[in-house]
Amino acid sequence: MKTRIVIIGGGPSGLLLSQLLHSRGIDSIVLERKTKDYVLSRIRAGVLERGIVKLMEEAGCADRLHAEGIPHDGTLVSYGDEMFRIDFTELTGTPVMVYGQTEVTRDLYKAREAAGGRIEFEVDCVEIHGTDGDAPHVTYTVDGEARRIDCDFIAGCDGFHGVSRQAIPLSVRTEYEKVYPFGWLGILSETPPVSEELIYANSSRGFALCSMRNPQLSRYYIQCSLSDSVNDWTDEAFWQELNRRIPANVAEKLVTGPSIEKSIAPLRSFVTEPMRWGKLFLCGDAAHIVPPTGAKGLNTAASDVHYLYEGLCQFYETGSSDGIDRYSEKALSRVWKAERFSWWFSSLLHRYPDQSPFDLKMQIAELEFLRSNKAAQKAMAENYVGLPY
Amino acid sequence: MKTRIVIIGGGPSGLLLSQLLHSRGIDSIVLERKTKDYVLSRIRAGVLERGIVKLMEEAGCADRLHAEGIPHDGTLVSYGDEMFRIDFTELTGTPVMVYGQTEVTRDLYKAREAAGGRIEFEVDCVEIHGTDGDAPHVTYTVDGEARRIDCDFIAGCDGFHGVSRQAIPLSVRTEYEKVYPFGWLGILSETPPVSEELIYANSSRGFALCSMRNPQLSRYYIQCSLSDSVNDWTDEAFWQELNRRIPANVAEKLVTGPSIEKSIAPLRSFVTEPMRWGKLFLCGDAAHIVPPTGAKGLNTAASDVHYLYEGLCQFYETGSSDGIDRYSEKALSRVWKAERFSWWFSSLLHRYPDQSPFDLKMQIAELEFLRSNKAAQKAMAENYVGLPY
Repeated sequence: MKTRIVIIGGGPSGLLLSQLLHSRGIDSIVLERKTKDYVLSRIRAGVLERGIVKLMEEAGCADRLHAEGIPHDGTLVSYGDEMFRIDFTELTGTPVMVYGQTEVTRDLYKAREAAGGRIEFEVDCVEIHGTDGDAPHVTYTVDGEARRIDCDFIAGCDGFHGVSRQAIPLSVRTEYEKVYPFGWLGILSETPPVSEELIYANSSRGFALCSMRNPQLSRYYIQCSLSDSVNDWTDEAFWQELNRRIPANVAEKLVTGPSIEKSIAPLRSFVTEPMRWGKLFLCGDAAHIVPPTGAKGLNTAASDVHYLYEGLCQFYETGSSDGIDRYSEKALSRVWKAERFSWWFSSLLHRYPDQSPFDLKMQIAELEFLRSNKAAQKAMAENYVGLPY
Repeated sequence: MKTRIVIIGGGPSGLLLSQLLHSRGIDSIVLERKTKDYVLSRIRAGVLERGIVKLMEEAGCADRLHAEGIPHDGTLVSYGDEMFRIDFTELTGTPVMVYGQTEVTRDLYKAREAAGGRIEFEVDCVEIHGTDGDAPHVTYTVDGEARRIDCDFIAGCDGFHGVSRQAIPLSVRTEYEKVYPFGWLGILSETPPVSEELIYANSSRGFALCSMRNPQLSRYYIQCSLSDSVNDWTDEAFWQELNRRIPANVAEKLVTGPSIEKSIAPLRSFVTEPMRWGKLFLCGDAAHIVPPTGAKGLNTAASDVHYLYEGLCQFYETGSSDGIDRYSEKALSRVWKAERFSWWFSSLLHRYPDQSPFDLKMQIAELEFLRSNKAAQKAMAENYVGLPY
């Protein structure tokens, strides 16, 4: 087979890139290791920056997002029983959109299928070849049958555990990593959210987040020990602990119910440099991971997709390789800012095992500064709604 | 002897408080452990917030400050060979004033002497009595002779190593502390400053600060090891190291010369709570220490003086104890914000022994965010010129 771009990974970044390229007449084939149902069963964050909303519009996939997504003009931050609000729309002119990542992926699959886009599912043994020469190609198997696609470029959208990053020799690659000494225990429950807007809660018992997918589907998280397992936490224990970590006047409004999903995720900051190696470009989790505080994972993947899409269009439409040559530099400049924001916001809200009483006072002082200082709120809000591409 | 306020400590906070109280007809006596010459030989920071400038004006001591002080409309921040400017006046409407702490102290001594203010020098064995009752008094010796002053209130302005803080029982006191794993090696040299504005430099070799006292007197600092001693550093070695830590195009303009003072200071963050115990009020370093990055030491002492002065005037002029009752709360609220700023600005600029490559990237990302984001610059500038009292 032959195509212009082989996209490894059928998650939201790969699909978005494929659909955007299609809108400009550039062919691609998407390779996905799992089934579509498996991909759609992954629960991920649900806060979209204006940047990805615009890309979804450009891809022609934003109708349902605009119909069902919930614009949030601000967010709440609590510490102990204190709570304050940061007004995104007032401070930056733009809200964020609450719309699950799974729904984004679903909309993209629908559009790709409607357009007759090629997606190979359940591929195995994916190997990347010739990225440093003139004949890049990808080999893989489906049902034990070996296949090969020749292409101009390869987009590695296959996540942190994918093969794409590994295809860049370690000798030219630098990895930066921070592993956080705690996890997030999250549940999904068919209950009305306790608050119309998200609540990021710093409490003496650890972080909590009150989030949602829609008016009847709540998503809550609590910071937990890395040694905890989901089985250690009954629904009742979860609700009780959440209750203790949010302000009392919020907790009394909490509607509890059975969890329909419960999982523990570790928190990691990770970046690999460079994000381009010859004909191979890394996008999203393949190149970088953020802790989920602030919901920058999908949004930062989308900014990579934007830079790559822009560079590839420029290449095919004008012959200039300037955009793809500068892809790594441009993408990383924004990636590091998102990494900084996610690290800072995580540091502000969690309990760390080595925190001294002075360190805890610094958290409170920073929260009180944020509460009282418009410029600090604006800097936070500009990050939250998404720095410009 | 008898007076309304005994002020322990004849440094700038004690003198400023005494002079301000005098301007409202409230008597005080200042007790100083050392001689006036000794106090005036201490070299300290030289950047004044608008708040202390206003207090000096109110105290009638601001003439020389306005004549000789140098208003700075901004500051420079460098990392490697990159450098950017933060414009205080544009962002906050106010500059800072470069004027040495020693000069502030000198002006205050002059004013106190002109007004016939009582200052006892070389006092020893200072003891604080009766702070929890109706007969507070201070005993001390001068030349072996025991003396006693009865008073209404006692202001502890005697610094980190003074007796005032210790007079508050440990059972009611909480101390918060962070000791930084490095020091500052500083020199004073009769050379023109390398830059018209201060340069705060983050370099791979550690922090450096290019500062000044006047157009012919430079003050430079470099981060050093806590195990270094002044004798380890020749002037030549200092200049060479400074040269490597500032951008190349700045370093080439550096004018070197013999040091006229050279010293190493450790860096510490410290706060004790509460700042009031009965009739005793702590001000400045007696209650809190900041690392020198951002020059918040004297400025934060001045904000304490402001709150105490305001409370005492209210008490003597209206009989209401509301201001002095809320002194600790009001002072600490601002102290913690200054602690946070000094801690953050130190964290942004220094090399720490336990920094991972990821942590170093976070410093650079934060510097680049600060460079590119007006709101972040404004939040920084508002702290630097001084948060409102």
